[in-house]
Amino acid sequence: MIGRIEIRTTGRGLREITREVQAAVAESGLVEGLCTVMIQHTSASLTIQENADPSARHDLEQWIDRHVPEGDPHYTHTLEGADDMPAHIRAAITATTLSIPIADGRLALGTWQGIYLWEHRRRGSTRRCVVHIGG
Amino acid sequence: MIGRIEIRTTGRGLREITREVQAAVAESGLVEGLCTVMIQHTSASLTIQENADPSARHDLEQWIDRHVPEGDPHYTHTLEGADDMPAHIRAAITATTLSIPIADGRLALGTWQGIYLWEHRRRGSTRRCVVHIGG
Amino acid sequence: MIGRIEIRTTGRGLREITREVQAAVAESGLVEGLCTVMIQHTSASLTIQENADPSARHDLEQWIDRHVPEGDPHYTHTLEGADDMPAHIRAAITATTLSIPIADGRLALGTWQGIYLWEHRRRGSTRRCVVHIGG
Repeated sequence: MIGRIEIRTTGRGLREITREVQAAVAESGLVEGLCTVMIQHTSASLTIQENADPSARHDLEQWIDRHVPEGDPHYTHTLEGADDMPAHIRAAITATTLSIPIADGRLALGTWQGIYLWEHRRRGSTRRCVVHIGG
Repeated sequence: MIGRIEIRTTGRGLREITREVQAAVAESGLVEGLCTVMIQHTSASLTIQENADPSARHDLEQWIDRHVPEGDPHYTHTLEGADDMPAHIRAAITATTLSIPIADGRLALGTWQGIYLWEHRRRGSTRRCVVHIGG
Repeated sequence: MIGRIEIRTTGRGLREITREVQAAVAESGLVEGLCTVMIQHTSASLTIQENADPSARHDLEQWIDRHVPEGDPHYTHTLEGADDMPAHIRAAITATTLSIPIADGRLALGTWQGIYLWEHRRRGSTRRCVVHIGG
């Protein structure tokens, strides 16, 4: 089964999408299988992170902002704005696709794991993910 | 088929799990297909790395320790210990899920590739992975 | 279905392989499913990146070259050349496997997304990828 998820982001940061992906799994009716999520953009990405304490997400964003900064004088790809090239690099060092086993009709995530869409552009955008659910 | 792998780690570093994953593939009896491994934690991760020279793993650990250090004064998520926030960042820039084709009843890894569980906490822990094997 | 793709690289950098992967999907005849590509090496990797402006790939290469440099005095794994250890680290922080949904008989990539093989060794090599295509 192929599903589509559309998320409206309003700025940088991690936005949980576990509920949306789980809804696609429920709709498939599959009890055991594999769920793959792919984001169709190169300036936003995916990650599985702790869903408990928001300070972990805050620190993640701060770390990546220091290590893949805006305004690095080495960048030549600058026409689309100062936040565009760092967005591509941030996407390259995190994930564009995630595959999660399904057991007992649910995503087999650990207790503290959530699936996140990581927006890397300042203004955000409408982000599209494709979900494949199969045996 | 859904399988479970439990690994007891005793501290930071890369611990090979190729044998355990290959055992799950053998148990499935599948000759051709796809094997997906997901680690159910956000302070440990997965990677496919060279299985020949241990110095490569040593240098990997040293690189990540310098680039995602403990005790960074920017961290605010510090309640669970100085090694907790770097563990989450290290997990975000490596992999939580890996999908490996199966051919001739075996993981289709390259000659020098091994699957590794990368423990990012100082004391280690019992780490759980879920394995999906399908056509 | 299991397919094989062999790519001859001639030096560092991102080399698009979308066409080769799409050809394997077409050959399978599958209309809906999942395509997984795995590179069988630990000194080259895979990424999904923007396929429009080559300056984005140039800057990606430059960023990784500054953050995972050659000749870092901390490296101990140096027998295979100055570019070998950085290649392993670069592979660890990018991707070894990518899973892409198939819809309407084609890879369900976003408009500006391409699949790239990222060569991390100076001289390049013949690189082998295994492709799994399934329902």
